[in-house]
Parts: sequence; C-alpha cells; structure tokens
Amino acid sequence: MPHDTALNALSQLLGERFSLSKSDLAAHGQNETYFADCPPEGVAYPETTAEVSEIVKICAANDCPVVAWGAGTSLEGHALAIKGGIVLDFSRMNKVLAINAEDMDAVVQPGITREDLNTELRTTGLFFPVDPGANASIGGMAATRASGTTAVRYGTMRENVLALEAVLADGTIIRTGTRARKSSAGYDLTHLLVGSEGTLAIITELTVRLQGQPESISAAVCAFDDMDTAVNTVMATIQMGIPIARIEFLDAASVAAVNAYSKTDMPVQPHLMVEFHGSEMGAKEQVERFGELVADFGGHGVKWSAKTEERNALWDARHKAYWAILASRPGYKAVVTDMCVPISRLAEAVAETQKDIADAGLQGPILGHVGDGNFHAILLLDPANPDDLTRAKEVSHRMAERALALGGTITGEHGVGMGKLSLMPAEHGHAWDVMGAIKTAMDPKGILNPGKVVRPA
Amino acid sequence: MPHDTALNALSQLLGERFSLSKSDLAAHGQNETYFADCPPEGVAYPETTAEVSEIVKICAANDCPVVAWGAGTSLEGHALAIKGGIVLDFSRMNKVLAINAEDMDAVVQPGITREDLNTELRTTGLFFPVDPGANASIGGMAATRASGTTAVRYGTMRENVLALEAVLADGTIIRTGTRARKSSAGYDLTHLLVGSEGTLAIITELTVRLQGQPESISAAVCAFDDMDTAVNTVMATIQMGIPIARIEFLDAASVAAVNAYSKTDMPVQPHLMVEFHGSEMGAKEQVERFGELVADFGGHGVKWSAKTEERNALWDARHKAYWAILASRPGYKAVVTDMCVPISRLAEAVAETQKDIADAGLQGPILGHVGDGNFHAILLLDPANPDDLTRAKEVSHRMAERALALGGTITGEHGVGMGKLSLMPAEHGHAWDVMGAIKTAMDPKGILNPGKVVRPA
Repeated sequence: MPHDTALNALSQLLGERFSLSKSDLAAHGQNETYFADCPPEGVAYPETTAEVSEIVKICAANDCPVVAWGAGTSLEGHALAIKGGIVLDFSRMNKVLAINAEDMDAVVQPGITREDLNTELRTTGLFFPVDPGANASIGGMAATRASGTTAVRYGTMRENVLALEAVLADGTIIRTGTRARKSSAGYDLTHLLVGSEGTLAIITELTVRLQGQPESISAAVCAFDDMDTAVNTVMATIQMGIPIARIEFLDAASVAAVNAYSKTDMPVQPHLMVEFHGSEMGAKEQVERFGELVADFGGHGVKWSAKTEERNALWDARHKAYWAILASRPGYKAVVTDMCVPISRLAEAVAETQKDIADAGLQGPILGHVGDGNFHAILLLDPANPDDLTRAKEVSHRMAERALALGGTITGEHGVGMGKLSLMPAEHGHAWDVMGAIKTAMDPKGILNPGKVVRPA
Repeated sequence: MPHDTALNALSQLLGERFSLSKSDLAAHGQNETYFADCPPEGVAYPETTAEVSEIVKICAANDCPVVAWGAGTSLEGHALAIKGGIVLDFSRMNKVLAINAEDMDAVVQPGITREDLNTELRTTGLFFPVDPGANASIGGMAATRASGTTAVRYGTMRENVLALEAVLADGTIIRTGTRARKSSAGYDLTHLLVGSEGTLAIITELTVRLQGQPESISAAVCAFDDMDTAVNTVMATIQMGIPIARIEFLDAASVAAVNAYSKTDMPVQPHLMVEFHGSEMGAKEQVERFGELVADFGGHGVKWSAKTEERNALWDARHKAYWAILASRPGYKAVVTDMCVPISRLAEAVAETQKDIADAGLQGPILGHVGDGNFHAILLLDPANPDDLTRAKEVSHRMAERALALGGTITGEHGVGMGKLSLMPAEHGHAWDVMGAIKTAMDPKGILNPGKVVRPA
C-alpha cells in the first residue's frame, strides 16, 4: 500500500479507532449520487482536536491525503478519497460544547448532526436554522457552505458560522473569528474556510448562530396551473419584502413522486410549499399578504397547516422528495444538479432547464429553494443505459452555463466536489488561480482533500 | 525620490490625473484621528478598471507601494502611505453602473459615497442600508468591513457585498461572486477581500445588496438613570428578537456634547436612540414591545419621532457625535476606540471601560452600536500634553484585551490599519500567520498598502 508508514503510525496513535476493515473502508468510499465507489486506505475516528492535529502531522510527514467525513450526505463526491489516503470520520466528535442562550450562539464539534443539535436546543427556546434536508453534520455543512429550505430567511452557513477552530495542513491548530457578532480584525478566515470543502484546513469546532423559536409558525401548500405562475408568485413575494421563512417549488413530476412516496394527496401540478415565522400578529400579516399574492397570480388549493404535526409531515415530505423521486424509478441513480440565479431570472432559468431535460430525452423533476433563486433537477439514470449518464452530465453542464449567463452561479449550495470541478474556470476565470494560490500557501503538499475545488496540481 | 521611474511612467499614463502637487500630497497624507501626517509620493486619479490595472502593473514593475483611497474617513490610519509610494484616489470612479431593482442589488464603482448612492436610489423604493455615520465611499467601507448604526438589522458590509471586481498585485483583473444570493462554488474570495484593507487586491467594482424602503419608520430617544439599565434594556431587546433597525447608546458625556453641538435638549443622562422599520402593523408592534421593555427597566422621557425631518435631525445629531465630542474641547484630538463583545458581556465591558478611562485621568465619552455589542470611547487628547496620547493608547490597548477576555474582538468595525496592528497576535495567534501566508501568496512583492493588517515583512 502506498501510505504504509502513515497507516502504521495512525494505528499506533489511535489503536482500534483507526480502522482498516473492509466494511469500514467500503462505507467511507460510497456517496449519495452517481460517483464510482472509492474506498480510502484507512478510517480514523478522532475524539479530540489534539488527536486531529496529531493525525494530520503524521499524514503531512508521509504525504498521505486526509479527507474529512461528516455524515456522508454530500452530493458532488466531496468526501471521496480519490487520491488515496485516509478518511477522518468525525462521528465521535459530536458534542455540544456550550450553549450561550443569552448570546444566541452555540459551540459544537463538527460531527454533530443538525437534527441532534436541534434536539439538544429544544428546551432553550432557540434553534439552529440551516436546513439542507439531509441530516448532515454541522462540520460538513460548514465545509460545503450548505443552505436549504430556510436560507431565504435565516441565511446559509455563511451567515450562521461565527467562529471556527481548525487544524492546518501541518497540524497547527488555529482559531478564526470570535463570539462577537461582527469584527473588522483582519482577513475573514472563517468565511474562507466555510465552503472550502476540507481543502484548506480541517474544521474541529464551530461557533454557530442560533435563532429564537418564533412565537407563531404557519405553513401551507398551494397549487398553480403552470410553472411560470408559481415562480412569478415567488418573485413577487421576495420583491415585496415578505420575510417568508421557507418557499419551496416542486414541479408536477416532483409532486407525483412525493404523493406516491409520502402518501400525500396534492393535485399533480406545480406547487409551492411555504412557511411563515413571526409574532402572532406578524405571521398573520405575512400569511394574508402571501394569500393575496397567490390569489392575484391565480394559485389555488391553498391548504394551511398551523398544527406542528401537519407542518412536520409537510416538511418531511419535502425533505424526502429526492428519495421519492429515486423511488419512482426503482434501481435508477441520479445526477442531482444545483444552480442559482438572481431572482428576476428564475422563471426563464426553470423554463429553459425543463425544455433542455425534455429535449435530452431524460426524466428530471425540478424542485428547489426558489426564494434564493436556487433550484435542482434530479436527472434520473438507468444504470443499464450508460448513455443516460452522459446526457445527464451534458444537461447539468448546460444548466451551469445557463446559470452563469443569467448572472448566477454553478452551484448554490451543493458545492464543487468532483462534479463541478471542470466548471470552475467558467465561473471564476483568473479568480480560480487565486484560489489555487491560497491552496498552495495553506497546504503546500496538497494533502487536504486533494483533487477538489482548485485546479489539480 | 525613491520611486522616480514609477512616478514618471504614471505621469505618462495619466497626464494631469497623476498629481505631484504639494497640496494634493498633503490632502492624501491626512487622517481623521491622531496619526502623524504622511503624504504619499503621488496621487493617481484613475477613471477605469483598466487604468487601475495599468497603474498597478507599473507599480509592481518598480516595487512602488499602492494605497487605495476612498473618502479618507477611516479611523486607524488605513490609507496612509507609510512605506511611500502612491495613493489611488477613487473619486473619479464614483458611478452607479446598474440598479437591478427586481433583484434588489446595485453595481457601483468604489468611489461613490453611501449618501450619493442613496440619493441615486431615491426613486426606486430601495436603499443601501449600511451606515457608518461618516459619508464614506462604498469601496472604502468594503475594504474595512464597515458597519454602523443599522448593522443590528441589516448586517455589515460582510452581509451586503455580493460580488467584487478587483485588481491583483500584478495588475490582473478578477471577479469574485455573482449576483446570485448564495453560492457554494469554491473559496469565498469576496469575503476574503471585504475587510482586507487594500492589502490583497484593489476593489474596482462592487455589487451590493439593497433593501426595500420600509412602509413605516419610527424613531425615539429615551433616557436612563444609569448606564447599566440602558445596556440591560438593549440586551433584553436583542434577546427578545425585536427586529430593531437601530439601537444606539450614548453616555451622559456624549449627550452633553451632542446637546451643545446639535442644539438638542436631551437630559444629561445615558440615552438610547432607536429606530424601527416594518409594515405599519409590524413597526407598531415593535414600538409597543420596546416601550414595555423601557418601562420595565425604568427608562423614561421617551420621545417619538414619526416625522421624517425629526428622524433625520435625530440621526444627524448621532452621526455628528464624534465632531460634537471633539468640539467640546477645542483644539483637542482623539483616539477613537472600537471594541465588540458578545451582547451578554456588554454591560460589564462598558462599566469596566468607563472606570478605566476615569482611572487614567482622561475624558472619554462612550457611545456605540450596542445592538451588536459594539461601542466606542472617544479618548480626548490635549496636544499640549503628549502624555495624554500615551495614556489613551494604553486605555485603548486594555479595551482590546478586555474585548478578547470577554469573547469579543479588538475591532468591531474600524479595522486594523496602523492603530490595531500590534493587537493582531493577541486576537488571532497562529491564524495571523495564515493571514500573512495569504498576503504573501497574493502580493509577493508587498506593494499593496504595505505595513497594514499582516505582520510586517
């Protein structure tokens, strides 16, 4: 094996918490979408930051790649050890270290999942708002700059990470940011690491913002006769400044899949799923204004869910939409695309994408966090037909080009990983070289998640 | 002169727009606080990004420092050419290039001031929310990660810059970010440049977020018998989640100075100045809730200003508080400190600072953006007594150490410049070396605003 010295040293350091078992390697070589399996050479389960530092020092001394692993829910192959080396599994670093209720922040280890964090917060009147759907780890969400259904109101991981502890490529431990809500003290290393996908440093602790549980929450679904009307309703909602907490679009195909999977009974038409947070009076006012907009745009079939269980069922159905769509074609895999445009260009972006998918002869339900101008197509692939993957990648590539042409970005929330690497020059031009220069400055040996984000050496 | 070759080439390139006049050099060697005058060797007035690129190429070829200059309102000597070289004055690059009302963003050149931008936006129903008081340039505000009175509601420049165009140290032009509201496409170079004080690249264009003019605005002042009660009212307001748009603290000494300067008649007691933005109903609800809190905490003398002129007069008085305090001691200069702590530590931070100033035998009114945990002391200096500056710097240094001990930052909004450089290791530890490595990677010759932010070479 190419990294024997490192593997031996890691076994010495971690004992049973360094695994070479085939099942462990296989489990850490999988991904949620279409990338080929790629097992690492070993899996380390650190329990402290000091251990992470020691591990990285060993890897640095032996030119052994290190790939951080949270919950394994990323969609672009981020956590695959494509250049060999080890995976650092953070499942044992999953504690809440402090809840500062008065300051509405919490200090957590990277391995905690967002659902576990919110369970721990339940008695505080506070919650962690970022919700990508998957029960991802907070560390992984920071590393990919995740967002999801609530970003339209509460922001993405960019807005919700205040401070980090991280281990550099030589094992040095640094801290970035503080618990103060703002700072002008030098370069914003926190935001440099958020979204860096484990290529610049390994996040070992996070200070995240919390939000107060709203006094009042209302949710609803409503149907539209066509996609344009639904999307125009979204654009008007955002432009009127209604502080909507969630506004999700599902096209008719997504609705059909969700109905079958989650036993819902929505008419098979484009839908919006929405949620409002506020004071009793504030949420009521938002609901009324949104209701007026829906009526103006010809939406119908509005169903309100004020009860917690109904709301939970609604968002559970939404979160399972990916699995619902996969289940609609047993045995299929999917290319899950992700593009984000300025809100004024959303309707044309969705319409052109729908047409492109149809022209390519693919099935690809469209859904997404349209309040941010962000949406996905789940491009279904018949494994028996290898041409499907080729055509899906072509559609995905054209979606990214379309996003750029409309003033947007090739990925709103999924990140670069392996899937979007080839599109980075198109979005960034010379700025991609700046990213490469920063990578070289911070990780000269290229041991941190090599092959991702920056131009391959 | 040490950079004759560069100066000659710049004269050739820019003609009359490259100035060597004594008055021009002197005007660009001044600052708003206590730093010694430091005229540059020349002042360039570029009109296009291409010109900025050419200028930087000339400077790079001749190892000539380049310091970007906006409105000259920074408080830590950021724009002083302390290693010689030229100042790039952006006053001719002051245009609004695009207003995308549907997407609530604008594309501007760096030299436009925030007041001029808001004047241009007046007919759109939108406004640019960041308000540091001074009529700073948008480029300078981005470079120092400025904030001010409205950050508690709308965020700082960190949250309000979507994308940048910038010139690198070798003259290359890059673009960072897009008009999409979020992105996971690689390292967040936009947020690396915001707050980098012109040391990594020179910002030549900015895409900024805009906000809808609120339906309803109410403002008020209220008095408190002591500082603690006022600050506790602020903490409760934030913790209750009232979406207050501005909440400013002025101690009794600040109030006395403002009364004398702006002809206001506030009782000489600690005050809060507040503003609420929302729908008619929403703003009314906020006002009621805040009113209840003020009563609970024993505040009094609440004066509401619903009329635009009254509100403008109120905020004009607040914005002139620095000048009012300077005018209270004719001929004095000031060290303007800036610290920011988690909101739960605000009361003790203010109390200890007040005591420290008194113990040092200085006059130092305290005021600030307390909703962010951010406040300032204006430490007055008698130029006839050089010991004042020594003691003021000592107080300022202890304030920064206090901020760190309380989990905060050495500067919430003023930046590092020259004044806070020596405190950077205390806040950042090894992370300061990472900043240095990034600086070296992006500006290997060290020509961009040398002597600021990172460890001097």
